[in-house]
Amino acid sequence: MGAGLRESLRELAECSLPAALEAMGERWSFLILRGSFNGLHHFEEFQSELGIARNILANRLARLVEHGILARQPCPGDRRKIEYRLTDKGYALLPTMVALRQWGERWETGVRATPVLVDARDRKPIAPVTVRSHDGRVLGKGDLLWAVPEDIDEEPEAKAAE
Amino acid sequence: MGAGLRESLRELAECSLPAALEAMGERWSFLILRGSFNGLHHFEEFQSELGIARNILANRLARLVEHGILARQPCPGDRRKIEYRLTDKGYALLPTMVALRQWGERWETGVRATPVLVDARDRKPIAPVTVRSHDGRVLGKGDLLWAVPEDIDEEPEAKAAE
Repeated sequence: MGAGLRESLRELAECSLPAALEAMGERWSFLILRGSFNGLHHFEEFQSELGIARNILANRLARLVEHGILARQPCPGDRRKIEYRLTDKGYALLPTMVALRQWGERWETGVRATPVLVDARDRKPIAPVTVRSHDGRVLGKGDLLWAVPEDIDEEPEAKAAE
Repeated sequence: MGAGLRESLRELAECSLPAALEAMGERWSFLILRGSFNGLHHFEEFQSELGIARNILANRLARLVEHGILARQPCPGDRRKIEYRLTDKGYALLPTMVALRQWGERWETGVRATPVLVDARDRKPIAPVTVRSHDGRVLGKGDLLWAVPEDIDEEPEAKAAE
C-alpha cells in the first residue's frame, strides 16, 4: 500500500459512509425503510406490520424525513391523513438494500426471503447485485484496486469514444 | 397490495436483513469492515488508522470473527503476530459497501470519496452499482415488483434457453 493511499485511509472517518450509515444503520430505521420499499406508507401500517413502539416509530420516521429519505405529505384521498413516501434520495438506497438482502439470503439464512423482488416485465427474480467496470464487466476479488486520484485513468474523451 | 403479499410482510422481522445488519449496521463494525476492504489487517493498524479505543476494537473484531466475516490467523511472515482477513462471506459484502458508499457520495457529501475503487485492468473508476434483471437490464423505479412465490415466473428451462 503506497504512502498516498495510506494517507487517504486517514480520511476514512470523514468520508461518505458514516452519513449513509447514520441514515440506515440503526435497526428500526432500516426496517422502516424496508417497509417503505415494500409499500407501507402510513404510521398505522408501519406500526402494525413492524410491531414497533409508537414513540420509537415517530422518532425514526422524523429522522428519516429530516435526512430527506422519506417525505411526509397529505394523503391524496384524505388530506387530513399523512403518508410517508420515499424521496428520490430514499429510493436511491435500493441497490444497497437489495445487495444487503441478497447477502443475508446467501450467507446468513440460506433461504430466499419473501416477498421476492422481481422484474415487472417478466416476473423473474432480479439478478444478484454486483460491482461492475465502467463498461459493464462484473468485477471480482482480484479485479479491483483502491486508488488515489493521481492514479486514476480519467480522460473523458477516452470514455466517450468507447 | 394483495393479501398474500401483506401476509409476507408480516414475516419481515424474521427475514434475512436483520442478520446482515447486525454484522455491519453498527458504526465501528462498519468502519473496521471498510478498513479491511481497504487493506488493513493488524490490530495496531485498525487502532491507529481508525482512532478507535482498544477495548471497542477488540470487541468488534471478535464479533466480526464470530460472524464469519473476518478470519483471525497467524501472520505469514511472523507467526507470533495475528492478522484479520476478510473471509469469502466478508468479501461478499463488497456490493453492499460500494452501493452504500456511492449513495453517500451522491446524496450526502456530494463529492467522490477517496481512495477511489477502480478496475485493476484499466484503472478507471467502477460503475454505479445498480439493480438488474436476470438478463442484465438495469431496473429502475417502475420496473420492479415485490412478489409472493406463487407469482414468480421460474421455469429453469425458460431461463436456460435464453
